[in-house]
Amino acid sequence: MDPLFTDTGVFLALEGGEGAGKSTQAALLVQWLEGLGHDVLLTREPGGTDVGTILRRIVLDNSTGELSPRTEALIYAADKAEHVDRVVLPALSAGSIVLTDRYVDSTLAYQGAGRDLDFAELESVARWATSNLRPHLTIVLDIDPTIGHARFEGADRMESEPLEFHQRVRQHFLDLAAADPAHYLVVTGGGTPEEIHRTIREAVEPWLKQVDR
Amino acid sequence: MDPLFTDTGVFLALEGGEGAGKSTQAALLVQWLEGLGHDVLLTREPGGTDVGTILRRIVLDNSTGELSPRTEALIYAADKAEHVDRVVLPALSAGSIVLTDRYVDSTLAYQGAGRDLDFAELESVARWATSNLRPHLTIVLDIDPTIGHARFEGADRMESEPLEFHQRVRQHFLDLAAADPAHYLVVTGGGTPEEIHRTIREAVEPWLKQVDR
Repeated sequence: MDPLFTDTGVFLALEGGEGAGKSTQAALLVQWLEGLGHDVLLTREPGGTDVGTILRRIVLDNSTGELSPRTEALIYAADKAEHVDRVVLPALSAGSIVLTDRYVDSTLAYQGAGRDLDFAELESVARWATSNLRPHLTIVLDIDPTIGHARFEGADRMESEPLEFHQRVRQHFLDLAAADPAHYLVVTGGGTPEEIHRTIREAVEPWLKQVDR
Repeated sequence: MDPLFTDTGVFLALEGGEGAGKSTQAALLVQWLEGLGHDVLLTREPGGTDVGTILRRIVLDNSTGELSPRTEALIYAADKAEHVDRVVLPALSAGSIVLTDRYVDSTLAYQGAGRDLDFAELESVARWATSNLRPHLTIVLDIDPTIGHARFEGADRMESEPLEFHQRVRQHFLDLAAADPAHYLVVTGGGTPEEIHRTIREAVEPWLKQVDR
């Protein structure tokens, strides 16, 4: 299955570890794009659909207890399938800009790097779930897990994983970005939210000419 | 991934369309096996685990509405992963007889024959979910959908599919059985529950010597 990049709309993904500031950057990015007159859809995984909301609760609630690693990966994949088919692809077809808070890379980083599943098998499930649809640009907000982790410790099932887990997750995002630099922007922490936002704007700008208005 | 048949315990699956009498036959089979002094675990898919109960509700409730075919297949696969890892394999390791009401074949028949997904991809997801664990014997209760379907019309999301859907499902169960006769028993309807039970007993008996007690 070849990677699929749509030729209508622009598909943007925000990725990164806990505490990296994704919500803040998502809000700033949407505000800027809407200010330029674009139709923007801000969505997320897991939980971007009705069914996804239920699935998100299963994988993130502490009350779920331990799940088999394959169960977890397949629940995330189910969430993705519904999200891509019902939300992302229709909006892209309509020429919108879709910004998703987390996408396939989070699955690969968290379940693959984090959970010791066979990586090729895991990736093949996630790619199948999403028809191998790829973001035009994935923005990785990179943060040292010793900082991000401290802010969120114990908050949910993912965030309460040990620090070493989050370090492997971080490395995995960086490896994915390094393997496909044309479709990735890595923004290292340390700047103010406004500085990070400007860096993101510069990277997003070239993709906007693809949006036919 | 080669098919996996455990060498401890006996793994039995009951398959068949709606209204085929699976519940009745499951109860009779468990009663007989327990009478012989075996440890028997009766379980089911979807819904054989805590998480599975939630997933089962999603895929079977009418209120869910239409799901993307991949979403549905992945939710079933997640249910299977949890069921096999947490329930089926531990019981087989302990030397028990595990009888599951539906297993991978139901996924292949309902989502594959029924829903027009790519069959090889669907099978690969279901096999991955279950580590390719196979039942020592799958008992297919075969019933003409014009009979079984009439009994259940409108009851849940699956049962309210049109008759033609259930005809394809039926054919798919028969094809799976024909492809691997050593691990399948097809029991055609028409007999009394007690007659069908006797046919099943005769097929199960040879597998019982595998249970080390």
